[in-house]
Amino acid sequence: MAKGKKINSAILIIGDEILSGRTQDLNVSFLANWLNKNCGITVGEVRVIPDKEKIIVENILQLSKSFSYVFTTGGIGPTHDDITAKSISKAFKVKYRFHEEAYEILKNYYGKKNFNDGRKKMAKMPSGSKLIYNPSSAAPGFMIKNVISLPGVPSILKGMIENSKKFLVKGKITQSKSINLLTVESNISVELANIQKKFKKQVSIGSYPFFRLGKIGVSIVLRSVKLKSIDLCLKEIFKIVKKKNINIFN
Amino acid sequence: MAKGKKINSAILIIGDEILSGRTQDLNVSFLANWLNKNCGITVGEVRVIPDKEKIIVENILQLSKSFSYVFTTGGIGPTHDDITAKSISKAFKVKYRFHEEAYEILKNYYGKKNFNDGRKKMAKMPSGSKLIYNPSSAAPGFMIKNVISLPGVPSILKGMIENSKKFLVKGKITQSKSINLLTVESNISVELANIQKKFKKQVSIGSYPFFRLGKIGVSIVLRSVKLKSIDLCLKEIFKIVKKKNINIFN
Repeated sequence: MAKGKKINSAILIIGDEILSGRTQDLNVSFLANWLNKNCGITVGEVRVIPDKEKIIVENILQLSKSFSYVFTTGGIGPTHDDITAKSISKAFKVKYRFHEEAYEILKNYYGKKNFNDGRKKMAKMPSGSKLIYNPSSAAPGFMIKNVISLPGVPSILKGMIENSKKFLVKGKITQSKSINLLTVESNISVELANIQKKFKKQVSIGSYPFFRLGKIGVSIVLRSVKLKSIDLCLKEIFKIVKKKNINIFN
Repeated sequence: MAKGKKINSAILIIGDEILSGRTQDLNVSFLANWLNKNCGITVGEVRVIPDKEKIIVENILQLSKSFSYVFTTGGIGPTHDDITAKSISKAFKVKYRFHEEAYEILKNYYGKKNFNDGRKKMAKMPSGSKLIYNPSSAAPGFMIKNVISLPGVPSILKGMIENSKKFLVKGKITQSKSINLLTVESNISVELANIQKKFKKQVSIGSYPFFRLGKIGVSIVLRSVKLKSIDLCLKEIFKIVKKKNINIFN
């Protein structure tokens, strides 16, 4: 991948607990913001799938072909339902085996006496993986080909993500500006569509209704890799705001 | 679909704002819980995709073939980035046109004078759609074939979901029980794997580390359509708890 090009990614959330509604995912929003700000990597798709080997294998193969990177979350712990590393090995047809350095890290962390089979399992990963070090609870994540596997617990993931940075090719950061208007979407939808048409290639305009502090309004979000284009687009929006006498909500 | 069979679904979240990390999705967890409790419908996959027609079409075709139902959220408002209805029409090769009843509902709600083009757009949907009535802000959702389209704003979605119930074939409700143990996963992983093997066909056992009120522990979640199987499985887990002298956290 050449530096500065458009680099995209998919997030693959592996976990029955998200699909059942028991657990609220918090990693997508964090990862999407972190990847854009720190690496200029956009997230093009997110999937949540169950802890089933066949399904993990299919999704790893599909997404790793379609995106520059795939970030998986979940399923790299010590229990029977943690099958991410094994499934990725299968997807890429490489051996699922002890990573020597990971084994040493975990043995030192737990102590030789307490280094039981469950803990040893966390050192097993696809052969040829690079380690993503884990400053909070030792068990490392890993990168194999363009797939980066991180844990599902948000606090641990947040502590580790910085250590994946060195492996990632950087793209252009998407800039964004937003403006909150005290109006309803249907009052500006025609004008907004015209502005989007005009800036079709440069700026992506999103329109999101909000209800805050008893106020009904619309957040207009402008996104582009070029700040200048955003500012030009914003000018056009201010013209409508003025013309329609719409108040701004800060 | 025969009543009482395994009925599953996919949730398709359509929205750049979720992918960019700007907005935290709250609908997956709500929908998954609601669908299971009220209709016995499981969620087998979730996807988040951008506001792009081609991508929406592809995903609607794929997911509507693979699952009993597809629930879409987002993209049914009045602005240019609301292209869900148009894209689903394209996917199913049916006309995208005014739904007469939806048109009347919206005209009455806004009043003939204020019924502008943006508002009229919300009455356009795939030809042959059934309406999902919206008690809070008039603009209805719709169902076409096995796809149910709901809005992205969580409060509005929550108000509407009940009105989709009459269109859904009901399945068996997945029951669940959980137990919180004051131990670490690796202390019980081998035993847990053995129990999962024993109950392979009846119960799905999930193991999730937690950090609450200064306590480190593991939530063991047992899920099955048969409460009796869950209770039998729970008994086995209590045997380990007793044997290993593990405290329970309530």
